[in-house]
Amino acid sequence: MGVSRMTGAGPDRADFPQMANAIRALAMDAVEKAKSGHPGMPMGMADVATTLFAEHLKFDAGNPDWPDRDRFVLSAGHGSMLLYSLAYLLGYEGMTLEEIKNFRQLGSKTAGHPEYGHAPAVETTTGPLGQGLANAVGMALAEAHLNARFGDDVVDHRTYAIAGDGCLMEGISQEAIALAGHLKLRKLTVLWDDNNISIDGPISLSDSTDQLARFAASGWATTRVDGHDPAAISAAIEKAKASERPTLIACRTTIGYGAPTKAGTAGVHGAPLGEGEIEGARQALDWPYAPFEIPEELLAKWRAAGARGAETRAAWEARVAKDAHCEAFKTAMAGDYAGALNKAIAKYNASLVETPQKLATRKASELVLDVVNEVVVDTVGGSADLTGSNNTKTKNIDVLSAENYAGRYVYYGIREHGMAAAMNGMALHGGVVPYGGTFLVFTDYCRPAIRLSALMGVRVVYVMTHDSIGLGEDGPTHQPVEHLAALRAIPNLNVYRPCDGVETAECWEMALKTIATPSVVALTRQGLEQARLKPSDENLSAKGAYVIAGKDANDVTLIASGSEVSLALKAREALAKDGIKARVVSAPCFELFSMQPESYQKEILGKAPRIGIEAAIRQGWDVFLRRKDGFVGMTGFGASAPINDLYEHFGITPAAVAAKAKRLIS
Amino acid sequence: MGVSRMTGAGPDRADFPQMANAIRALAMDAVEKAKSGHPGMPMGMADVATTLFAEHLKFDAGNPDWPDRDRFVLSAGHGSMLLYSLAYLLGYEGMTLEEIKNFRQLGSKTAGHPEYGHAPAVETTTGPLGQGLANAVGMALAEAHLNARFGDDVVDHRTYAIAGDGCLMEGISQEAIALAGHLKLRKLTVLWDDNNISIDGPISLSDSTDQLARFAASGWATTRVDGHDPAAISAAIEKAKASERPTLIACRTTIGYGAPTKAGTAGVHGAPLGEGEIEGARQALDWPYAPFEIPEELLAKWRAAGARGAETRAAWEARVAKDAHCEAFKTAMAGDYAGALNKAIAKYNASLVETPQKLATRKASELVLDVVNEVVVDTVGGSADLTGSNNTKTKNIDVLSAENYAGRYVYYGIREHGMAAAMNGMALHGGVVPYGGTFLVFTDYCRPAIRLSALMGVRVVYVMTHDSIGLGEDGPTHQPVEHLAALRAIPNLNVYRPCDGVETAECWEMALKTIATPSVVALTRQGLEQARLKPSDENLSAKGAYVIAGKDANDVTLIASGSEVSLALKAREALAKDGIKARVVSAPCFELFSMQPESYQKEILGKAPRIGIEAAIRQGWDVFLRRKDGFVGMTGFGASAPINDLYEHFGITPAAVAAKAKRLIS
Repeated sequence: MGVSRMTGAGPDRADFPQMANAIRALAMDAVEKAKSGHPGMPMGMADVATTLFAEHLKFDAGNPDWPDRDRFVLSAGHGSMLLYSLAYLLGYEGMTLEEIKNFRQLGSKTAGHPEYGHAPAVETTTGPLGQGLANAVGMALAEAHLNARFGDDVVDHRTYAIAGDGCLMEGISQEAIALAGHLKLRKLTVLWDDNNISIDGPISLSDSTDQLARFAASGWATTRVDGHDPAAISAAIEKAKASERPTLIACRTTIGYGAPTKAGTAGVHGAPLGEGEIEGARQALDWPYAPFEIPEELLAKWRAAGARGAETRAAWEARVAKDAHCEAFKTAMAGDYAGALNKAIAKYNASLVETPQKLATRKASELVLDVVNEVVVDTVGGSADLTGSNNTKTKNIDVLSAENYAGRYVYYGIREHGMAAAMNGMALHGGVVPYGGTFLVFTDYCRPAIRLSALMGVRVVYVMTHDSIGLGEDGPTHQPVEHLAALRAIPNLNVYRPCDGVETAECWEMALKTIATPSVVALTRQGLEQARLKPSDENLSAKGAYVIAGKDANDVTLIASGSEVSLALKAREALAKDGIKARVVSAPCFELFSMQPESYQKEILGKAPRIGIEAAIRQGWDVFLRRKDGFVGMTGFGASAPINDLYEHFGITPAAVAAKAKRLIS
Repeated sequence: MGVSRMTGAGPDRADFPQMANAIRALAMDAVEKAKSGHPGMPMGMADVATTLFAEHLKFDAGNPDWPDRDRFVLSAGHGSMLLYSLAYLLGYEGMTLEEIKNFRQLGSKTAGHPEYGHAPAVETTTGPLGQGLANAVGMALAEAHLNARFGDDVVDHRTYAIAGDGCLMEGISQEAIALAGHLKLRKLTVLWDDNNISIDGPISLSDSTDQLARFAASGWATTRVDGHDPAAISAAIEKAKASERPTLIACRTTIGYGAPTKAGTAGVHGAPLGEGEIEGARQALDWPYAPFEIPEELLAKWRAAGARGAETRAAWEARVAKDAHCEAFKTAMAGDYAGALNKAIAKYNASLVETPQKLATRKASELVLDVVNEVVVDTVGGSADLTGSNNTKTKNIDVLSAENYAGRYVYYGIREHGMAAAMNGMALHGGVVPYGGTFLVFTDYCRPAIRLSALMGVRVVYVMTHDSIGLGEDGPTHQPVEHLAALRAIPNLNVYRPCDGVETAECWEMALKTIATPSVVALTRQGLEQARLKPSDENLSAKGAYVIAGKDANDVTLIASGSEVSLALKAREALAKDGIKARVVSAPCFELFSMQPESYQKEILGKAPRIGIEAAIRQGWDVFLRRKDGFVGMTGFGASAPINDLYEHFGITPAAVAAKAKRLIS
């Protein structure tokens, strides 16, 4: 009988080998039918997964969204059939045998890699290696924070991740494990599928790292077990539960366990086994059933495992329902702050309009965050070692550390990628609203995680300062010129570039209200004149672009974002002296503008010749510009020099805009 | 007297403290004058740098390009004044005191971060943290390879990198050190500026990693020294020289050493010291000289250090000049293969045209590489654990390993970022032509290094397969939709997407001939009909786009890249049945097309309505399209399904193109 802290009885450990074989059979059959996929990992890790789910994991298959469930992350996402098999066997609603048979087919829940929101039991989208591991760190971090806020009765769960050699070789893994070790995230357990095989062949082709020593160096507890021995696996998990540190369990497994000739080789990693090999595996595993057939008695055992947590879950719900102190927890999990934000931002902006200020938008962002962090008490901010530059820490929030998990500010260290992926995990966990900063140019360092924020549709706010050559002397390695374009290229990502304090507040409001879309807020290092001087009841940035000056001017339309809006306003003044009437459109968010009705777009842009202005490349500006229209911006990398010299050198000046306008009109 | 394997006598070790102070003084004075920069690191690491350059580094300041020099990489690039001070003090031509005084000013050699090709003694562009460390691994790898090919008499030098805490926290560092440890790159030495400070404050805010244990876990020799004790530093470097493994020397230093109140704090990291603090530092360091003044006697000692290697270098040159066996070495270092390539590619393409084949372009790339690797014997290929998928290993090259450095194929492991940055280092080192593969979607993982390839202008070829939804079942995590656009956004990067075997060969030829521009070659997983059936003496891909069918057809112009070219050809056939004459333009490289004269562009595109076709987003297509023109491609993320279902589902079909053409014309 398995040891369990849960009330519901689990299946007997003697049944585990055959239960694991059910996973193996479904995995090899589904991959075979799809003629594509990765059977090796699910077959190798079936014993580990069975032991975890049947004996340790706190969950209720009937209520997959139970907030206090343990989180399980399949970081080695190519082994998706492991997760789908588990979901079917455990009885998650919607994961039918039909879905298993439709593995990797259009419209099925059983996509090639696990996709969040697409199938039950999928806590995060994985496949790009290392991401799930770092997501798990974020989930464990969110749990530690909420546990500190709401106590064991409300929040007390663990996070498990299965990681492969690929996850551990990816650099992001180092950022993730170093952060987890530093923060002593003791409820995090990584089960490493230590099978000595990668796609190219034996691991010895490319790696000689002592992974246990490496994790230990970052403050982890480590242990090694036979990944096909349920008793050993279970003991290691028990030990992890008692650890004061995060734990790595190296599970020595045979990839493709059961396949008679291919097991233990790269040949079983990413291709169907083939009929003969499957036949042999059925014999070797003593699995005399037809493809996709799970004997009823065995299925019942799995279903019992899926229901193990039902009572615990019900007790939790009863507890939380009658506890008034849980209201804040429910608010946090609901994550809807629109009402409170509206008022606070409107009030803040009214004060700004009353007493205009010259502000760097990164500073404006800090002032807005002062307000936001007061109203949205569930934010957890941070920076990748640029706190003073990103202006992400407000005075009203404390540091989150191993000594104070209730804090709301994370010193992520020089780990942009780990930070971004951890924020994905935090957002997926729920109950916290993560935001984090670095320089805009370093979005390159965390781009795989930003893409996953967008693909999953989670609310993560990337605070990206020093957003152009305007950062000056640090030079081309630090000056983004192509990054706005490259970020705007990512589907379902809103890229904001506010022009002053008022727009900064509006963009923050939008970023926090947009629950299913992540945001990048691009902010200046340099001070900017306040461009918005008239009060507005409406959030003008919400439509992506609007006329900020010269509503009735029809000679030329100047469209600009961020720091270039005040430049456009100056060009408008210069043109006015020559009797040319320029309209100025501020465009803080291209994506939101593209979503407006064509009539709105036409009204804003007008019929006059247009000039786009942005201290970046033109790519992506064709949302606004026709081929004959002009653009004032960058065509290549920047340079190291004081800001004014750079704008002059690259010809991004009011005079250059005015001259281009005259040429266009004539 | 310092121990040295070099013939020229170096300065006496008793002089090192004052020599180091010269670095400190120049660094603090230059930062103060520029009103921006990072004085803390140069002041902290001055003793280490002095010991290395005055006693150990094999170089000749009068001949900075000497191929057999030791390489020195300042991975912590924000400490650029360390490097500029050294260059001036050692007497590198062009690094005048005037340049030092113009630190961070427009047009000076002394940019905010060291830029390759911009100033002498700069072996690689650094600033984005961790990159230099991984470049150094690539340099050491190139050295090991060339040493194996040409022997100690021709190639026998070491690589040193100074890395900071930021470099070691970045995930890329793990990829780099694991690779270096695995390959036993014994001539690589990393000097870690172990100062316990990052921008946000003490390292303890964000990290608890035992770095020595971590490096040891990846097979490095490790040691710790007082970074202000020349004898200890020198002994550690001597020990590293004798090591059979790469060595980490943790140099315990005080950041901003000498600054009376700010030393040892984050306050000295990234801002000028201020007048009072500088005054105090002058007293503390016993440096009674005016700003930028270096006493003549001391400068002479530095200059002597700069000339230490002159005799060794002269002897090397004499040796190499008379050794006929060195011809291949000289060819490798020259790196010009245009002539040989032209002939080989033309011959290969003629054979393809004669017997057309249906090929995935990734397979075509392998066939081309068979030819290339025969003709260009200096290529070193590899893949980030996708050898069989990227088709990067040809039969005529052996594996490069610790047992066989002469091999030409690197199993980089699941380390895209480390691979890309190592390839930058290999290209910078010279003598090898690196190419390496992964899936196109994972360019996101190595984007910071790709950007640096472009910024530095080095010949690295990125072989990026599985270049669209055409990869099928792996689904949206693996399907690039925005990546072509995001890569085309990077200045000075050529993105090739060939449509068949012939174009694949042409693109490879261009990629190898383009010495100052890196290339991405995007290749399909799926088989493609051969589109080019007519022989051509000319490399048609060299102009970026050309008419592949229907030169005189003027009803509509279909422009496509890669896998969509054959789709366009089918649409052309369908349209012909309805009496509509369609021209088809194949566009394998947007960047090269943009460089053509307007007359060529107009001639190719014609005056008819245009439709762009690419299984990716439209962004970036405005090189070819006007606003009213059509586009058939993707508007969001892909899905998991067999390829044909996906093309149908997303409406990228000949029928869809034909229908759009009819709407455009009518």
